[in-house]
Amino acid sequence: MASTSSIALSQALLTRAVISQNGSDRCVSVPAFSGLRSASPRATSSSRRQRIASASSHSLRPLVRASVAKTAETTTDSSLVDKSVNTIRFLAIDAVEKAKSGHPGLPMGCAPMSHVLFDEVMRFNPKNPYWFNRDRFVLSAGHGCMLHYALLHLAGYDSVREEDLKGFRQWGSKTPGHPENFETPGIEVTTGPLGQGIANAVGLALAEKHLAARFNKHDNEIVDHYTYSILGDGCQMEGISNEVCSLAGHWGLGKLIAFYDDNHISIDGDTEIAFTEDVDKRFEALGWHVIWVKNGNNGYDEIRAAIKEAKAVTDKPTLIKVTTTIGYGSPNKANSYSVHGAALGEKEVEATRTNLGWPYGPFQVPEDVKSHWSRHTPEGAALESDWNAKFAAYEKKYPEEAAELKSIISGELPSGWEKALPTYTPESPGDATRNLSQQCLNALAKVVPGFLGGSADLASSNMTLLKAMGNFQKDTPEERNLRFGVREHGMGAICNGIALHSPGFIPYCATFFVFTDYMRAAMRIAALSEAGVIYVMTHDSIGLGEDGPTHQPIEHIASFRAMPNILMFRPADGNETAGAYKIAVTKRKRPSVLALSRQKLPQLPGTSIESVEKGGYTISDNSTGNKPDVILIGTGSELEIAAQAGEELRKEGKTVRVVSFVCWELFDEQSDAYKESVLPSDVSARVSIEAGSTFGWGKIVGGKGKSIGIDSFGASAPAEKLYKEFGLTVEAVVAAAKSLI
Amino acid sequence: MASTSSIALSQALLTRAVISQNGSDRCVSVPAFSGLRSASPRATSSSRRQRIASASSHSLRPLVRASVAKTAETTTDSSLVDKSVNTIRFLAIDAVEKAKSGHPGLPMGCAPMSHVLFDEVMRFNPKNPYWFNRDRFVLSAGHGCMLHYALLHLAGYDSVREEDLKGFRQWGSKTPGHPENFETPGIEVTTGPLGQGIANAVGLALAEKHLAARFNKHDNEIVDHYTYSILGDGCQMEGISNEVCSLAGHWGLGKLIAFYDDNHISIDGDTEIAFTEDVDKRFEALGWHVIWVKNGNNGYDEIRAAIKEAKAVTDKPTLIKVTTTIGYGSPNKANSYSVHGAALGEKEVEATRTNLGWPYGPFQVPEDVKSHWSRHTPEGAALESDWNAKFAAYEKKYPEEAAELKSIISGELPSGWEKALPTYTPESPGDATRNLSQQCLNALAKVVPGFLGGSADLASSNMTLLKAMGNFQKDTPEERNLRFGVREHGMGAICNGIALHSPGFIPYCATFFVFTDYMRAAMRIAALSEAGVIYVMTHDSIGLGEDGPTHQPIEHIASFRAMPNILMFRPADGNETAGAYKIAVTKRKRPSVLALSRQKLPQLPGTSIESVEKGGYTISDNSTGNKPDVILIGTGSELEIAAQAGEELRKEGKTVRVVSFVCWELFDEQSDAYKESVLPSDVSARVSIEAGSTFGWGKIVGGKGKSIGIDSFGASAPAEKLYKEFGLTVEAVVAAAKSLI
Repeated sequence: MASTSSIALSQALLTRAVISQNGSDRCVSVPAFSGLRSASPRATSSSRRQRIASASSHSLRPLVRASVAKTAETTTDSSLVDKSVNTIRFLAIDAVEKAKSGHPGLPMGCAPMSHVLFDEVMRFNPKNPYWFNRDRFVLSAGHGCMLHYALLHLAGYDSVREEDLKGFRQWGSKTPGHPENFETPGIEVTTGPLGQGIANAVGLALAEKHLAARFNKHDNEIVDHYTYSILGDGCQMEGISNEVCSLAGHWGLGKLIAFYDDNHISIDGDTEIAFTEDVDKRFEALGWHVIWVKNGNNGYDEIRAAIKEAKAVTDKPTLIKVTTTIGYGSPNKANSYSVHGAALGEKEVEATRTNLGWPYGPFQVPEDVKSHWSRHTPEGAALESDWNAKFAAYEKKYPEEAAELKSIISGELPSGWEKALPTYTPESPGDATRNLSQQCLNALAKVVPGFLGGSADLASSNMTLLKAMGNFQKDTPEERNLRFGVREHGMGAICNGIALHSPGFIPYCATFFVFTDYMRAAMRIAALSEAGVIYVMTHDSIGLGEDGPTHQPIEHIASFRAMPNILMFRPADGNETAGAYKIAVTKRKRPSVLALSRQKLPQLPGTSIESVEKGGYTISDNSTGNKPDVILIGTGSELEIAAQAGEELRKEGKTVRVVSFVCWELFDEQSDAYKESVLPSDVSARVSIEAGSTFGWGKIVGGKGKSIGIDSFGASAPAEKLYKEFGLTVEAVVAAAKSLI
Repeated sequence: MASTSSIALSQALLTRAVISQNGSDRCVSVPAFSGLRSASPRATSSSRRQRIASASSHSLRPLVRASVAKTAETTTDSSLVDKSVNTIRFLAIDAVEKAKSGHPGLPMGCAPMSHVLFDEVMRFNPKNPYWFNRDRFVLSAGHGCMLHYALLHLAGYDSVREEDLKGFRQWGSKTPGHPENFETPGIEVTTGPLGQGIANAVGLALAEKHLAARFNKHDNEIVDHYTYSILGDGCQMEGISNEVCSLAGHWGLGKLIAFYDDNHISIDGDTEIAFTEDVDKRFEALGWHVIWVKNGNNGYDEIRAAIKEAKAVTDKPTLIKVTTTIGYGSPNKANSYSVHGAALGEKEVEATRTNLGWPYGPFQVPEDVKSHWSRHTPEGAALESDWNAKFAAYEKKYPEEAAELKSIISGELPSGWEKALPTYTPESPGDATRNLSQQCLNALAKVVPGFLGGSADLASSNMTLLKAMGNFQKDTPEERNLRFGVREHGMGAICNGIALHSPGFIPYCATFFVFTDYMRAAMRIAALSEAGVIYVMTHDSIGLGEDGPTHQPIEHIASFRAMPNILMFRPADGNETAGAYKIAVTKRKRPSVLALSRQKLPQLPGTSIESVEKGGYTISDNSTGNKPDVILIGTGSELEIAAQAGEELRKEGKTVRVVSFVCWELFDEQSDAYKESVLPSDVSARVSIEAGSTFGWGKIVGGKGKSIGIDSFGASAPAEKLYKEFGLTVEAVVAAAKSLI
């Protein structure tokens, strides 16, 4: 466990980080230990780096306290609110207009509800976007991201300055076309693909509920924040949103408050053409509290009352349906699909300025609006400072809990955690890697405080139950076994939300490998948004047997090898399984897929936990001078076949190297010298075997090598029969090798 | 249009086909022109072939008429029903027990409702599983497939004889571990992955509603059948089911009747742990009529009344929630997850026999049960024969409509249809392939009667609107523009249902290419179940520009190239787009993905509609003797770059071949000689360029070649900027080529 003392921690939370980008220094206060995420440098923008400085903001505290108290009691006069709301609208209009690309309609319609939310309700510290106890906001309708950028700009986030608004959707800017947490501090998750955001929000709210139940004390509610989200008609139509909202209702996530931007317009026109269900009633059926704000365009008091009511309902999530006009203010385009996803055009921008009585120039924030919002900087600092004091008291009284919580907040793993992983020898009993995986999961949960997860109704098949722990449920949220039901897509996206809540959360989730097809969109966003989720994917080939081709993955391994920033592991035995987990746990910005067998496998000589880090390595070799007659390459359950074929060939006097290719991506990242030591370029006699598509293997075995795999769908029969019929046999490997030697 | 006369058609519908398998002749009557699907031969079971014979069943008609009339009025005495229901239960128990693998729980619980449905309600002809006007049944909870096999067996389908039940889940049997339409005549679609089945059922019901509206006349309702489905708790939890049920409600699919097997058990135990929503209320919110049968275990009259009520509601689909006991009859395992997915075990099978008073041996069907069900053979023949007469009358009075309907039933395309496809010359104006695609779609819809489709709320971006046609809606179901809303997964699975309703349906569906991630599970089942859906996938690379990495496909092309039985096209211009459609339309057992550009592309010299059939072909070459200095290979929007680079290199005196690799799968299927003529093995200097993952290209460019692509995520910026920053340029291709020459 990290040894940061409570005082150091308290101070650290107001430490400032200076982000240097394109020559301009930007101040963002960042806790030294907590939740620090650097903006991910693109290949071509490596100048984006973070340096930590240490200017303290303690002097702000007295001023701020009064301000916080005042805000809680009063609301801003309504003409200023109107002005602030129009500022948000025009920042969005102007940025989209300048980019000649983007979505002005949603920001124009949602400006009122989001103004109330950000200016009057949410608790955050703009100078430290990573302050642990901030309220989270997720714009699930991510195309409307200019709304969020405008709000962050007004609220004083250094990540979105005027120059950033002007650089909307341009190369290297911090304001990309959809919200990206890895580009823009203040953005919590990555949205745009519809439905993902509300699912992430459920994950964030789950994380809060779990931590609050686990760590809060009667005298110190150290974890206490809300999760807000705005979702549109598009999110509502996506199946994933029904999956996660069903779970949110089931789990009773009372601090999740979602605004449904009910504007009746989607890209193809009026929602009447495809979406006529009764959304309110559906959400009631899902166990939500539902409120309807009929005048979302300027009914500020209605919006305020709805949020108050939502907070009063503590055992259910709340959906606030806010009826709005998309593109509100545009005289000729409001309430039509034409304002959804394209710039208004010069003429209509002018008409909108006239219509809303807006005398200000492009990107101009009126002084009174600026001044009004400026209080969030000292208020935010005070909120964080108060929380720091609270944490110091907590740590003093509850040092063990504080240490665990700190690990989750900071992402620092307890020292020696990796020693908990099981190790194996060739004499250890053979087992399915899904079972060996369970040994790892249970070992890790004991030593890693933020380790939690579950399966999409296949816990007993995926072998993912944490035996020492109970189920996370409405009334037992302190537990760590998540029960997702048969909702793979929602499961994946919820885990993204958990992972991005705090760096020390390490969520895993599980289903049959073939059903990654159901959750692929969420897995891709994990890879893109640097959410280090661990995917426990069992039944990884035709080796699952009788369930047949609907359940047998073929192209899946290849499809993940082709996906950027995700590690695709296919361990062959206990050591490789433990090795895969060891890496997956440390890779917090890169998700990992573990493809695991249903069938029993032997513990192979030559494998080791450490070797897995190389991605590909030799498990046995009777050659000298790095020049075997043939190299046999296998992964997962087929490594055993490769090893047996190697023995056969050696009996006939051949020199054979057997290589495990457990993770291609890691092998790719090794030095050329290492690669040459495993796959010498002079040895073109190479045979690979893997119970899946041979697609991509050409690069490994080379033009003269052979790949044994399955390029058709599987079939329904016992596993051994299938291996024989599909030609995944020792004989086939031996024959292929002989044809090459 | 096929020239089958009305008399020939009428007779054809009772033509018999003899399926020869493993030496045993099997009679299945098959219309010569309609819906004939051969059981798909596996690699290793090529003996499965169909031969058409011509035994007529006309003599059965008088006998049958009376029987039909009687059935409509009376119901079987309840002890015989009990016995029939228990027969279904024990056939499932015995088959699972013999296989030592499978799911007995659902068949035991659902036997009562399915007995009533198959024996008393549904209209089908067991000797012709492909009779057009049959009622469709989809077991969405596909793991319970022994239920369906038992029913087909009792009803007299030749595809499931006793030997097939005994071969359950074994290699080469017609009774695989989940229902597969391509293996078992009588199975309509392929289910198992949860939620897909109910989505297919929505597609089947949509198809019926469309055809009925388009072809029925006041004096002749030639299209008139129901779609039934059984779905379980698992299907209900999946997001896809909410998507499609929302659409089914919106479309008012009154002839869709779904039974919800409400047994409160899923694999992880009681549904209380993850599924506590109010399903009835949710379905009401989705616009369904909902009925609750409280006693699904033996409340036959309740079940009958519910079906009657459901049929009376013609403007809404109906959900009949049937509360059942999973594993009903098993004294120690009923109502528990242990009966869901494993054989009962010898002892418990005996205990169940005792408990249900079942004196019969394994696989034994009591004589009175057999005799009772035997009437379905003559009844079915009469139903079909009556319909044939009806069709003959229809054809006489409405010859034009009959010709169109016949084309849809038979899958025979009107002669010369392909002439409707547009052609282009290098002088034709350049355009985005998404726009060129729209020209093809509109051309095809005019000449192909079963061509219909739509987009997931991106019609104006995907360019998929059929301009001469209106929207398929509740009150205009004769139209052919489908409006799926933002429901990609549901869209894909609904299209599978449409495609498998009748061979002449050619459904297309559209979204951004990156969002194939949302619908991949449905696309895989299209490939597996031989549903020739056309996927119109626009915005196919970073070339979409500012929307950024959440919207930019990278690994997607590779991921489909790795998937079995699907064609992945990436056309470069107008001719290649038309060529891709020409193939896609004819491939009725193989879905096609068309990746199309958002950005404008030139019409290239050297491309042609015909050449696309080769998959890869030379578009320009200044070499002789099949020995160019270098081969440049491109696809889609990058073929232009390859062509320009070729020109640059030729200016410098090099001999260069430029190759379009529009469809890898088709190239793979060409002769070795052809392949050598395009990619001579002696020429190792090869450069590929494609705006996507380079994964898999190693096989094409060889060990010494170079692949230019993108192996990281994209970024948000204008397209031209992105191409430059990611190095997809003429200069990069020229430089790579020079490094190899």
